[in-house]
Amino acid sequence: MMGSQQQREEEGRAIRTPPDSIGGFESLHRLLEANLKPDVFQEVSRLLLGFNCGRPLEPISLPEAATSLSEEHDFDLQAFSFHADKELLRKERIVRVGLIQNSIVFPTTAHFADQKSGILQHVKHMVDAAGASGVNILCLQEAWMMPFAFCTREKRWCEFAEPVNGETTQFLQEFARKYNMVIINPILERDVNHGDTIWNTAVVIGNHGNIIGIHRKNHIPRVGDFNESTYYMEGNTGHPVFETSYGKIAINICYGRHHPLNWLAFGLNGAEIVFNPSATVGELSEPMWPIEARNAAIANSYFVASINRVGTETFPNPFTSGDGKPQHSDFGHFYGSSHISAPDASCTPSLSRYRDGLLVTEMDLNLCRQLKDKWGFRMTARYEIYAELLSKYLNPDFTPQVIVDPTMQKRE
Amino acid sequence: MMGSQQQREEEGRAIRTPPDSIGGFESLHRLLEANLKPDVFQEVSRLLLGFNCGRPLEPISLPEAATSLSEEHDFDLQAFSFHADKELLRKERIVRVGLIQNSIVFPTTAHFADQKSGILQHVKHMVDAAGASGVNILCLQEAWMMPFAFCTREKRWCEFAEPVNGETTQFLQEFARKYNMVIINPILERDVNHGDTIWNTAVVIGNHGNIIGIHRKNHIPRVGDFNESTYYMEGNTGHPVFETSYGKIAINICYGRHHPLNWLAFGLNGAEIVFNPSATVGELSEPMWPIEARNAAIANSYFVASINRVGTETFPNPFTSGDGKPQHSDFGHFYGSSHISAPDASCTPSLSRYRDGLLVTEMDLNLCRQLKDKWGFRMTARYEIYAELLSKYLNPDFTPQVIVDPTMQKRE
Repeated sequence: MMGSQQQREEEGRAIRTPPDSIGGFESLHRLLEANLKPDVFQEVSRLLLGFNCGRPLEPISLPEAATSLSEEHDFDLQAFSFHADKELLRKERIVRVGLIQNSIVFPTTAHFADQKSGILQHVKHMVDAAGASGVNILCLQEAWMMPFAFCTREKRWCEFAEPVNGETTQFLQEFARKYNMVIINPILERDVNHGDTIWNTAVVIGNHGNIIGIHRKNHIPRVGDFNESTYYMEGNTGHPVFETSYGKIAINICYGRHHPLNWLAFGLNGAEIVFNPSATVGELSEPMWPIEARNAAIANSYFVASINRVGTETFPNPFTSGDGKPQHSDFGHFYGSSHISAPDASCTPSLSRYRDGLLVTEMDLNLCRQLKDKWGFRMTARYEIYAELLSKYLNPDFTPQVIVDPTMQKRE
Repeated sequence: MMGSQQQREEEGRAIRTPPDSIGGFESLHRLLEANLKPDVFQEVSRLLLGFNCGRPLEPISLPEAATSLSEEHDFDLQAFSFHADKELLRKERIVRVGLIQNSIVFPTTAHFADQKSGILQHVKHMVDAAGASGVNILCLQEAWMMPFAFCTREKRWCEFAEPVNGETTQFLQEFARKYNMVIINPILERDVNHGDTIWNTAVVIGNHGNIIGIHRKNHIPRVGDFNESTYYMEGNTGHPVFETSYGKIAINICYGRHHPLNWLAFGLNGAEIVFNPSATVGELSEPMWPIEARNAAIANSYFVASINRVGTETFPNPFTSGDGKPQHSDFGHFYGSSHISAPDASCTPSLSRYRDGLLVTEMDLNLCRQLKDKWGFRMTARYEIYAELLSKYLNPDFTPQVIVDPTMQKRE
């Protein structure tokens, strides 16, 4: 156990300092803004972030109650607004979404109870800032209440797992009631009714503090230090869409973002916003991060809210990754960069690559159907062809449709 | 009919001048390179284009026979190389791919025969440059041998349609033989054996000049000035992969790039390079252009070669688009920007946004399977869930998987 609150804070801060290797800039957007002339920056932004309703995305100002929390507790705070066209027969459906990215607070050597309570007490300030900003739907990152210890293959970290109605859910239910806010709580779940099975789960808490339901991660990585298949199995909850007071939402947890079919399924079930609580590191995925989310938003005519863990987490015992690197004791740098993508191909700038942060985004959900009508992707999708192909592909005797050049001389 | 060759060239050049509204810069990459300090540019490039085998993509130098053609005939010429890791049991499978983007040469008021032969004679220089550069597989843009007249809804442009073994195929078969090159020829097809039906088709010519087979565009747009469903219907050729002397290739024509299932199907059939010959304009799709291609390459562990028409085409009779804009007589600016995306999330810079161009890219096809092994997307895809969901979705009585918050008060 450690000493004073101040000491704890100082130890915690140390973990959140960016390593030199990543260059220390906060986001691509800010780097470009600082280095380009305004007219060039505007054109570059148009190409990189797209335009919404014919113009650059608008920042919005937040109340002093929120900005002062961000200054006092040193987290990034940004806010933007997506517009939709006015319709004659439907009212606007304006929703404010909040995304929180957080580092761990205490070293991984601290008592587990301290580690968890440290994170909860720190994240509380960002939840309060979301409440003060009028956020309607708030989502936290994957397994936000613990270090991302799956790299270690050590089973003791399973102690962080909680039942659906456990400590963090109860902690967040209070805020859901206080701020009339839907909150998505991605945890490591302990399923006591099924033999203490462990799942990677998002608990959806309604704006009256009730638990609406859960979703379990559908696709599990086996890559690099992501030894997650050691800890939990593929989810058994299908692709549920949760109809909340503020719109139809779904959760595609982390590695599921690499699977276009997973995104598609949430779309077929009617999602308007799909959250992607994640934990991913720079060397592995940073150039892919905005591409997959934005593609999913475009292809499925919904909003995608991407959240990534932030900071570098060092573990007590070194581990290897089977990739020829020497043993090491950290997972690499989780690069944050949480952002929201819209169905019209526009996108917010990203939160910091190394600081905790809250991204507040207002959107008119009418944009989803407007883009379905504009591009017609659903109507031109010819699903019958693909249902048949996938059924055939499942057969072990599947023969691909290949047309061989009869004049070809195969290379050795 | 028009006058001298020189006059023709001058009239043609006028069409290829970029309008002021797009700012006149050639590509995002070049704009950033010209405006950022080298160290900042390198970091921005890492985030925007990714790294290949741990370093920035390498440019390669081309023979003087190619560079002199590009100077003489004023087309953009760029060349890059993707690497893969060395394997112990498989040899490298190095392939050079060429992509050609072209504007029309004569005004759309010229005699159709002149319009077509003007394009062929101009594109010939780029095909020769590809041959001189050792290109193994060459692909042209969608309906490259005609103006993209589908905006007009006038049926007279159907005269440009050709049978599979028609004028442009015969024209390209010579080059296929001469340069030992596979050539993909995307045409407007006239299917005389099926009641003069018109299709949007890619003819695959083998490196011995033989026709290996065809693929017809699977998904047809009904958006903006893309009145293509007025001219041809959804293709009936499935998702063929063509096994050529240089690897397994497929063609996803234009609007098909918005459909993740279409990309997936070519992957399930074993494609290593998927070509996306396209015609799309700035206002509609420019921020989406790299996202969809790169996502497809990542998700399906293959290379994607994206080609877009270039220039602004003006038609004799004005037309409306049903979007509240006044009648107009041009389609907007086709922004070129052809490029190649790799399965490791790296990507070449793009060709010019307003000049004709040839992009030469060398790649080791072994990278595809290496990325399948690294990320494991195929093995973690759980296709059985999606085959079942799509089958259910096809049912008119399909009920989405929705969990309603029972405490919710619906908004008006």
